[in-house]
Parts: sequence; structure tokens; C-alpha cells
Amino acid sequence: MNKQILLAERPDGLPKSSTWSFQETEIQELKDGDVLIKQHYISLDPAMRGWMRDVKSYNPPVAIGDVMRAGTVGEIVKANNHPKFKEGNFLSGWGGVQQYTVTNGKGYFKIDSNKAPLPKFLSIIGMPGMTAYFGILKVAELKEGDIVLVSGAAGAVGSLVGQIAKLKGCRVVGIAGGKDKCDYLVNDLGFDAAIDYKNENIFSGLKEHCPDGIDVFFDNVGGEILDAALSKLRMHARIVICGAISQYNATSRPKGPSNYLSLLINRGTMKGMVVFDYANQYPEAIEAYSKWLEEGKIKSTEAIYEGIENFHDTFLRLFSGEKLGKLVLKVSE
Amino acid sequence: MNKQILLAERPDGLPKSSTWSFQETEIQELKDGDVLIKQHYISLDPAMRGWMRDVKSYNPPVAIGDVMRAGTVGEIVKANNHPKFKEGNFLSGWGGVQQYTVTNGKGYFKIDSNKAPLPKFLSIIGMPGMTAYFGILKVAELKEGDIVLVSGAAGAVGSLVGQIAKLKGCRVVGIAGGKDKCDYLVNDLGFDAAIDYKNENIFSGLKEHCPDGIDVFFDNVGGEILDAALSKLRMHARIVICGAISQYNATSRPKGPSNYLSLLINRGTMKGMVVFDYANQYPEAIEAYSKWLEEGKIKSTEAIYEGIENFHDTFLRLFSGEKLGKLVLKVSE
Repeated sequence: MNKQILLAERPDGLPKSSTWSFQETEIQELKDGDVLIKQHYISLDPAMRGWMRDVKSYNPPVAIGDVMRAGTVGEIVKANNHPKFKEGNFLSGWGGVQQYTVTNGKGYFKIDSNKAPLPKFLSIIGMPGMTAYFGILKVAELKEGDIVLVSGAAGAVGSLVGQIAKLKGCRVVGIAGGKDKCDYLVNDLGFDAAIDYKNENIFSGLKEHCPDGIDVFFDNVGGEILDAALSKLRMHARIVICGAISQYNATSRPKGPSNYLSLLINRGTMKGMVVFDYANQYPEAIEAYSKWLEEGKIKSTEAIYEGIENFHDTFLRLFSGEKLGKLVLKVSE
Repeated sequence: MNKQILLAERPDGLPKSSTWSFQETEIQELKDGDVLIKQHYISLDPAMRGWMRDVKSYNPPVAIGDVMRAGTVGEIVKANNHPKFKEGNFLSGWGGVQQYTVTNGKGYFKIDSNKAPLPKFLSIIGMPGMTAYFGILKVAELKEGDIVLVSGAAGAVGSLVGQIAKLKGCRVVGIAGGKDKCDYLVNDLGFDAAIDYKNENIFSGLKEHCPDGIDVFFDNVGGEILDAALSKLRMHARIVICGAISQYNATSRPKGPSNYLSLLINRGTMKGMVVFDYANQYPEAIEAYSKWLEEGKIKSTEAIYEGIENFHDTFLRLFSGEKLGKLVLKVSE
């Protein structure tokens, strides 16, 4: 039997338990060329909230009644004449929020489960890692000596962005919610400073920790934080719009950045990114991360919760901030 | 005697007559190396509203009690051993809102008054021309076949942006206020279409005239128009933030663009520009414009009003839209 989470209705605001339906079904039959993957871990990402909206975006919305789209890692437990994959292979891909996936393998990648614990393939050597790597190096065009500000800095992407910028010789300031996360950024990840947006005024924090302004702002949050960052741009500053988690559950129109004319005054650039555009360059990032991990120069933290039944409560941690690093749900033994 | 307009107080909202003080003073004595310029025309530009604010910007604010900063063209009526300039030379520069300027000539350029009527040196072969040229070609990185949207399209900058884009083989849609301006864009300047924001819904206008979306948006206006344009971006679209005239007299914080996450979805870029950065490339633009003018391939319209006493009323036409093309004030016979 296969336990699945389906999208039952499109939420207005924060998802509720009625947003989802839980279903137990028989595992599909495999057609010729199919594989059956037993999923071990499911990736929970802010972007999933966007896929639940019925709007034109960089990929189609999840349909009502469909298994909720999610990244996964799991093991092939049955293969039916697949040309590339066989039983025992570990695959990462878009398996969705369910315990078993039957697929022809399109969009799945074989991973070497001896190289790293499985959750890392949803984290540093998965989508968040790719997003951080290409976002800060290619989209932001990071240069040594840049003053870099990162929001959502204790999250899956932000924590890597900041560490990469440190490795490239930058001053790095993170914005995160709560003292624990801020301590983690400075003490564990080597950030130069952290601003606790839940207990500090962001503008004052920026004044204190970025007195000379910001060359690069990597934004995962939007809202007031984006506005504050805009007020501190240096000449030719670059802003990477990676996400806007503060706005994803908004029931009115998202708040636009009032201070956007700072782009004019400072000849700044604000640029949006979607990681999939870099798919043919992923090997470069994976190689860099593998080296940094081996040398102990970079860390990734995964917040692992258990049980597909706990999907809803766990998913909400993305928005409450009650997790550290990459949020992952373990769905099988 | 020299008639001058001084900044008397910083306006909250639209400038009032009390914003200015009118003064008649004796013309200063010339020091060694100075010239005395009799100004013929004064340039009235939206950017002037920004220079009246007491905030950090790309140039310092005009001080209370100072002659209001403005671009000018005039003739040297007296030269006191100036190394480069002599009586009878025509100069463009930052003479301010006054009839006579005494200066050592720093920041002034000699112009050839036989080449074009003087007001053109504040228009197509002046700052607006330079802004349009470098904004659309360098900042927007215009490519043949792009679908280009321009706001403030009947203004000094917008009308040139659209014409340059047409010359480069693009589809061009302008946004302007009123039927006359829209007719002018299509019938006189060769735009493919125009949207009358005073009488049409912008979203519907974009749907009709940009059904395939926008590659380049050149924005002089901001506010709702920027939001509407964001909703129609094509992949890798570029937005040039040249100005935001709809927000310059706002008494509350400017309205940020709610739809800015369209940059993420469409991998768009929003970039601010200030024309002064291109100063060393102005000759390239002047050469291009001279050629286009000679060949009859480009038009510039100047809206010329008379009398320094009428400065305040004329200046307000920038914001009411009651003018066509470049707004210029004639201040001497």
C-alpha cells in the first residue's frame, strides 16, 4: 500500500489541514520500462506553496486531487526492463508526497548513497544547494570583497549562500528569526554578523552591521526585509530574487518594495532566478560542494521530521520558521 | 539685473508657489577665468523634483535659498580670460533657473548653435536624448525583434526611446495620457500602438497590444503602470528604471511594485540608470542622433513656454502632463 498526500483545495492564506487529503492506495502496476521507487525522504520547500496557486508560473500548478509535487530521494525496489536504472539504485527526482512512486524515470537522477547521507541529496547536493551556488555565483556575479546580505539565512539556501560568499572572501551578514538561528550563523557557519528580525529592528541592524552598505542582497523573504535592504544599496549593487516566503501566504496582493527607486539612485540590478535554468551546470556545483565538504569548509544542516501523516504540520514549519536548515520528511523506515 | 528662482522651502507633495522665491539681483562680478552666460532656455525635468528632497541621492539636494538647479543653454556675453570659452560661444550646462550665470565653465560644453535650434540641445542632443539612447541600447540591451513598452512615451525621453527601438527593428507600444498624445505616438512617431492610461485600463491595453508579452519595459512613471508591465513580462525581460514621475509628489511612501515576483518567474532583470554614468560616451549618441535627424528618421518635439516669472506654472506641466515632448522655458529675448 502507498500512502499519499493529495492537494484537496487551494488554500487562501496559510494551508490548513483541509488543504490536503490523505489517501492509502494500492501501488500501481509497472509498465514495461517503469521502476518502482520506495521514497525515503521528501523535500519540503517554500516553492511548493507557489505550485499550489492556480496561476501561470515557471511550472504548472499542482492540480486539485493530484499527489502534491515534491522532490524526493528513494530506492528502486522493482524495475521492469528500465534501460538505465535497476533494483537497488537510489534516485532523486520529483516523486511527490507519497511513499512509493511508479515512473519511467524521466527527470530522475541516480545518486551514490555511499557518498553522503540521503537527506543531503535534497539539501546541499540537491535543489537548495544548486540554487545557492548558481544564485550567488552566477546571478549575483559575486566578487571578492563584496558585502553580502542574505535573508532566510538559516534556511536551506541562505545558509549555503552565506558560506559560499565567505569562501569567496566576502563580508557576510545574515538575517534570521531568533537568537538560536543567529548564533548558529555566526558561531557554526562563520557569518560575520546576524540580524534577528524577530527581535531587532532590521534597519538598525543593517546600520550596525552593514555601515558601508550592501553590494549583494540574496533575498528569500521579501516584504519589509527587501525594503530595508534596498535602503542600504551601494553603487552597482545586485539583488537576487530567489523567493519571498513572507508573501507566499498573503491573502492580499504581495507588498511591493517601496524603496525600489534605490535601484535608480545606485544603478542597482534586481534579478529573478529559477534554479532549473542551470540544470546543465549542476555537475560543476556538485563537484565544488563535494570538495568543500571533504575539506570541511562547508556545512549543511537538515531538519528531519518523520512520518507522512505529519506532512501538514511539518510543512508549516517552513512558514513559522520552526526548523533549522533544510526541512526534510522521512516517509519510510 | 538677473532674475532668479530660488528654492524657498521643501514641498510636501506637489510644489506650490511658496516653494519658490523670485529674486532680482545684480549680476555678480567676474573673477579671472570666469564667463558670464546669458541663458536663453532652461530645461524643466522630472528629476528636478527629486533634487528638491533632502535625501541622499545620485547628486546632492538643492539647498534652501539656492538658485534651483536646472540644465540651460545660453550665450557668453562676457569672458574674463577664460582658457577655452570666449564671447559669442554658446554653452550648455547646469546654469540653474536664472537669466544670467557667472561660472568658471566647469561642467559646461560648447555647442554649435548653427547645427540645431537651441532648445534641441536640452532635448534630443541634451540629457533626455542621452538618457534615451544609453537607457534603451545599453541598459536594456535592446535586441532586434524585442517587444518594447515605454511609459511616459510622449515625454522627452520616452518619445526617443520608442523611436530608437523602432529604428532597431522592434515592436513598440507607448503609454501616454490622452488621445492627442497617443495619436502623436502612432501617427507622428511611428509607434506600433499606444495605450491611453487616462482613458483606458492599462491591463486591458497591454492584453490587446502586447498579447505576447514584453521583452523590454522602459519606465519613466512607476506606480500602477510598473505593476501592470510586470504582469506581462516575457522570459528574460529587462526593465529599465529611468524614473517614477507618478511617485515624485507622493506624500506617503512610494508604491512598490506588487508584481515584482514576476522577475523571479520570468528570470527578469530590473535595473536603475542615471545618465551621467555615460558622459564619456555622449559623443557616440550625438553622432547617431545627428545622422538620424539628417536622414529624417527621428523627431523631437519641444514644448516651449516663455518667461522666468512663469517657472512655477510651467514646471507643474511635468506632473499634470499638459505638454508634449521636452518641456523648456525661454527666459530671455
